[in-house]
Parts: sequence; structure tokens; C-alpha cells
Amino acid sequence: MENPSAFDDFYSVIPAGGIGSRLWPLSRADAPKFLHDLTGSGKTLLRDTWDRLEPLSGADRTMVVTGRAHRAAVEEQLPHLLDRNVVLESEPKDSSAAIGLAAAILMNREPDVIVGSFAADHVIKDIRSFRRAVAEGIAAARAGYIATIGITPTDAAIGFGYIQCGEALSIEGAPNAVTVESFVEKPDLATAERYLADGDHLWNGGMFIARADVLLAQLGESQPELLAGLTELAEAWDTPQRGAVVDKIWPGLMKVAIDYTVAEPAAAAGKLVVIPGAFDWDDVGDFASIAKLHSGGRKSDLAILGENARVLADASTGVVISQTGRLISLIGVTDIVVVDTPDALLVTTTANAQRVKSVVDALKLSGRNDVL
Amino acid sequence: MENPSAFDDFYSVIPAGGIGSRLWPLSRADAPKFLHDLTGSGKTLLRDTWDRLEPLSGADRTMVVTGRAHRAAVEEQLPHLLDRNVVLESEPKDSSAAIGLAAAILMNREPDVIVGSFAADHVIKDIRSFRRAVAEGIAAARAGYIATIGITPTDAAIGFGYIQCGEALSIEGAPNAVTVESFVEKPDLATAERYLADGDHLWNGGMFIARADVLLAQLGESQPELLAGLTELAEAWDTPQRGAVVDKIWPGLMKVAIDYTVAEPAAAAGKLVVIPGAFDWDDVGDFASIAKLHSGGRKSDLAILGENARVLADASTGVVISQTGRLISLIGVTDIVVVDTPDALLVTTTANAQRVKSVVDALKLSGRNDVL
Repeated sequence: MENPSAFDDFYSVIPAGGIGSRLWPLSRADAPKFLHDLTGSGKTLLRDTWDRLEPLSGADRTMVVTGRAHRAAVEEQLPHLLDRNVVLESEPKDSSAAIGLAAAILMNREPDVIVGSFAADHVIKDIRSFRRAVAEGIAAARAGYIATIGITPTDAAIGFGYIQCGEALSIEGAPNAVTVESFVEKPDLATAERYLADGDHLWNGGMFIARADVLLAQLGESQPELLAGLTELAEAWDTPQRGAVVDKIWPGLMKVAIDYTVAEPAAAAGKLVVIPGAFDWDDVGDFASIAKLHSGGRKSDLAILGENARVLADASTGVVISQTGRLISLIGVTDIVVVDTPDALLVTTTANAQRVKSVVDALKLSGRNDVL
Repeated sequence: MENPSAFDDFYSVIPAGGIGSRLWPLSRADAPKFLHDLTGSGKTLLRDTWDRLEPLSGADRTMVVTGRAHRAAVEEQLPHLLDRNVVLESEPKDSSAAIGLAAAILMNREPDVIVGSFAADHVIKDIRSFRRAVAEGIAAARAGYIATIGITPTDAAIGFGYIQCGEALSIEGAPNAVTVESFVEKPDLATAERYLADGDHLWNGGMFIARADVLLAQLGESQPELLAGLTELAEAWDTPQRGAVVDKIWPGLMKVAIDYTVAEPAAAAGKLVVIPGAFDWDDVGDFASIAKLHSGGRKSDLAILGENARVLADASTGVVISQTGRLISLIGVTDIVVVDTPDALLVTTTANAQRVKSVVDALKLSGRNDVL
């Protein structure tokens, strides 16, 4: 950064929670999505996320919220992550609890802190453009807003939520910030095409930047009990009572996404702004997304992931992910998805990528936790 | 059989040679097609073949020609196979050498013997109808003809060769025998449809029945050197000189299919007759054929083969062959072929089943014999 001191009040928070069910059998309970290299960069998505944020907040000011089971893997991936910046969840409680607790802990340590929350398993390659958007988000946060970053759509994606932009604002340091008219769930194709054409809609990348006190006040308006629990946890966090308070409070915390407790109420109250980001972005939500990332959008390509992958393909397109080193031979299969792991094999097509979650649900129902 | 003694002069020969490249990675050099259960009968194709022939020739009069490497597996499959009825090839020399040597050995032991050759890896379920056709073939052989059995087509198959029927004959005990007009290689679909409609064409099942001396005389007319080699081998076969003569003669034997050395010349000379068989028949030539065998022709089915196969399929059709016990999950893939073996995985479609051989060829070229 040209001027690192500009962000001295900023703290990055990386919630590293979701398993990524639509990426089964690659993603598992013990090998969640953020611990995989899905871009071919040679780094896990978590490490890519860290490397993207370090120039903004510094290694000392980046916090990770993750499950107890993933502590060792996370610390191995992030050797510069400080002990005090590791927040371990005894059980998953969704993003309101994860981000809210991080904000509450950081506010206790540093009352004026600005926190930015960035998923551990998204892909962004244009880091300069990303940083410019975050810088505007930080400026908007300093002005008292809750800022989110929306991504300018490049195609009529139906796998993402959208943000409808409202009025332009005049915030110092955030010239592109506009109000948020509404959040829209994943649309159908016709609607997505309309959004792409009208220029008023951005992809919802799920990134939030706000003063910790502003974020928590908004959370408290929606869910006062949740805020009370998080506050009690945060007050005990840096004391010997942490363990006892976690055991008492954590199991009872409400499990709810921050979209519902903070983003939507803040938008309705005129406190949310969105910064349009011109960078590439993908949540790598399913295997179709991986195929697209690797082919650069070309339908004619076969993407191959996995160390020691050995693939012999003839007239085939799609994506192969190999974890076994077995020879994989494809003949005349188009838009195919083959995921080869030691105990489970998935064969589907990119068009069916979203349906992978239904297999995971079926396996859960039948008690097949050995492969989940 | 109503009258087993009717076939006292008959000997069955089972050439068990081909690997079945179109069934890779299931079929391998060390696990050829005839050693697999591809019908779900619980028995290998070889054992099914033996069981089909035993009532015709008896266990004592059934000979198997196979590679040295397969001796143990063949003997395990066929516990009643006599030692003197095992002919081991030191290297594959195609069907003229395999069947010709068997005929020559048997003729030395029993000058008037009638031999019938039946592939080790074909599928026939209607055994009564098969036996009726063989009985007619034996009658035609006694009358001095070389008989083949053609199968009445049930669809316009493009994966089989055809036999064009000629004039009806009046052979005692073979009322349905007709002369052979010509042999036709695998046709295109339009031609196959014409064959199916005209009623004059039968599938070429590659079965031959003839007096051994007649068969060998025909072979000698086409390939006198090959006959000379086989005769020298046969004369030494039941003596202590067998090994030395095999070492001397076998490597130089011509490698050629019996279709070219016996069937076509015999047809041209008016010595070949075909018995139309009304039974079901399949050479299980590729994975499409396996899918068809298991679905009974229904396109809506997913055939699953393999002990301990664990398949979770949603909106998928085709065939899955599992040798690993891994969980195999299919979503929205139609006419798919998945063959899951410990060191190689194949994913293709039934429409591409014939192209599997090209993968095997590519692997050979690149020296990947470890998976062949």
C-alpha cells in the first residue's frame, strides 16, 4: 500500500466456517472448502484470502473465526496468524455469531476499531481493484455507515444474490458509495439477464465493513439476546473465564446469517451503503463455478485439478478433480464433473452442479457420515 | 439331452484368448473379459460357456485354448476340465492357430472327430435353442460341411458382422441349414436396418462346427505353411517332445483370424453352411452391450455391476461397474458408463463405447502397461 497508516484503525475478520456441501466429495467436514486449492494457485482459498487482506490490515490485525476441529489446519496455512486473533467456535452458529463475536472482542480491545469481514473461500484475482473498494468501504465506515462491497456482474449468474443500488452519496473517501435499495435472493435466468442489462444490480459478495460499535448496535436492534450473549462472551474472552463463559453461552446462541440480522435491517434504515467493485469475484459455490474459473469461461476446456492428477481425455469438457493419483480416462463426455477421492466418486455435469447438495443431504439422512 | 450318445463324435473347443480391449479398465491383460461375470449370473463368461457346452460334448470332451498366464484362473473356473484338454499358448496367435491346433490335436487322437468352436466370452441365455442349432451344425458337419451358426437379428446392430444367407439345402438332421452367400463386416446403421428388414442376414456369432479333417484341409488350402506348423505341433503334442516343438514352431505361426483362412474360402467354395439360431446372443463387445444386457433394452435403467458396489444415483441411466467398494454418486448423467477400478477410472457414454479401444491403444503407445 502507498500509505499503510491510512488503515491503522482497520481489522480484517475471516470467518472460516462453511464446509461447502456443493463441493462434496472434495469438501468434507474434516476438509472444508477453504482448505482446498480450487484455483490452481498452489495455495488454499484461506491462504489466498489472508494474502489479499494482509496489505490492508497487516498480519497482526487479521482475525480468523473457525471451528475447533480446523485450528491446526488453519494455523498451518497461516503461520503469521497471532494466537489472540484465533477465535474458535465450539459448534457452528452461522455468520451473525461468528462476525458479531469477532467485532465484540475487537471493540473491547480497541473501541474505535473498524472491522471488515471477508469469507475464507471466495476467489478474487484483481487485488488492486479489491483494495480500492475496501478503502472506500473503510472511509464509509468511518463516516458511520455499514458498508458492503458489491461486484459488477460480468454475466447473468443465477447462483449469486444481488444488491439493488439506490442513491449516490457524498462520503469523503468513498466517491462510489451508493445506498442499498434492496437485497435480492438468487434470481432466475430471465431476472438475472435483466439485472445484468439495467446496470443497477451488483453481485452480493457478502463482505461487510463497519465500525464494530455500529455493527453491533445494528445487530442488537434486530436480535438483542444474541448481542447480549456475544457481549458476555467478549467481556470474558481475554480473561481466565473464557472457557466457562463459552460453555455457558455458546450453545444457546441464535444460529442466523448476518444478512438477516444486520445487512437487511441496515439497508431498510438507510445505514447501509454499497461500494461497487470492478474486480473479478467468485464464491466457488459449486463444481460448475470451478470449471468456469479454470476455463476462463470457454466451454471447450477440460479443467484438471489435483496433485498428481493423471487424466487421459478425448473429446471431453468440464472439470476433473483427482485426489487419488489413479488414471482417469474420459471419452466423449461434455460438461462433465468427475471428482475422484479415496472413498467416494462423484460423476455429474456442470448443469447439475447445484444438485450435489442433495446427495450430501441424502447421505446425512442415511447416516453415511463416514463419507461426509 | 434326450440322447447324449448322438454327439459321441463331438468335441467342444473354447478359445479363451482375447483381452476385450473395449472393456478396459475392467478387462486387463491379467483379467481378460472371459474371466469376468458381465451378466450378473454370478458366473464368469468362461464358466457360462462351459456350462452351456457340457451337455453337448460332456466334461471330458471340452477343450480350452488359452494363454499360459491364464492357466490357473481357467482351471479354477473349470474344475472338471481335464489336463489333456488344456492347450496353452506361449503367445497369442489369433484364432486360426488356436482353433487349428485344437483340431489337429483332437484329430490325431480321434480321426473322425467333429469339433465345434465357441468363444469363451459370448452370452447366450436360451440354451435349448442354442443346443438345437448346434445339433443341426453337427449333422451338417457329419455330411462333410463346415457349419457356422448365425443368429437371427433382433435389432439393427452395427457392432456385429453379418452373414448373408443363400440357398436352402437338404441335409439330414439339419433341416434349416442354408448356404452362405457372403460375410459382411460391421455395417453402418442404414445397411444394418436393411439387413434387419430383408430377413436374409444373420449375425455372425463366430461359431464353427466341422470334422477336424475337413476344417484343417480347408485351412491348408488357404495357408499351407500354417497347417504344416500346426500338424507338427499336434504330432508332438502328446509326446515328451511337446515343449521343444512348441518353442521351435509357435513363434513363427501366422497370426490371422479363422474367418479369413477357413470361413470365407469355404463359403466361396460352397462348403460352408449356416444354421440360423433363434436364440439371444451377444458378444458383450463393449460397455453399451453390457448396459443393454442388464437393462433388457430399456433406456431408463442404470445397470450396476460389481460385488459390494455402492451407488447413489439420481436421474441417471447407463452402467456402473465397481471394483473398489467406493461410494459412487451419479447426478443427472444419462447413458453414462462409469468403470471404477483400483488403479483406473473410465467415464464415457454408451454412444462412445466403441471408442474405449482407442484409449487402450493410446496407453500402449505411451508405455502405460501398468494399467493395461
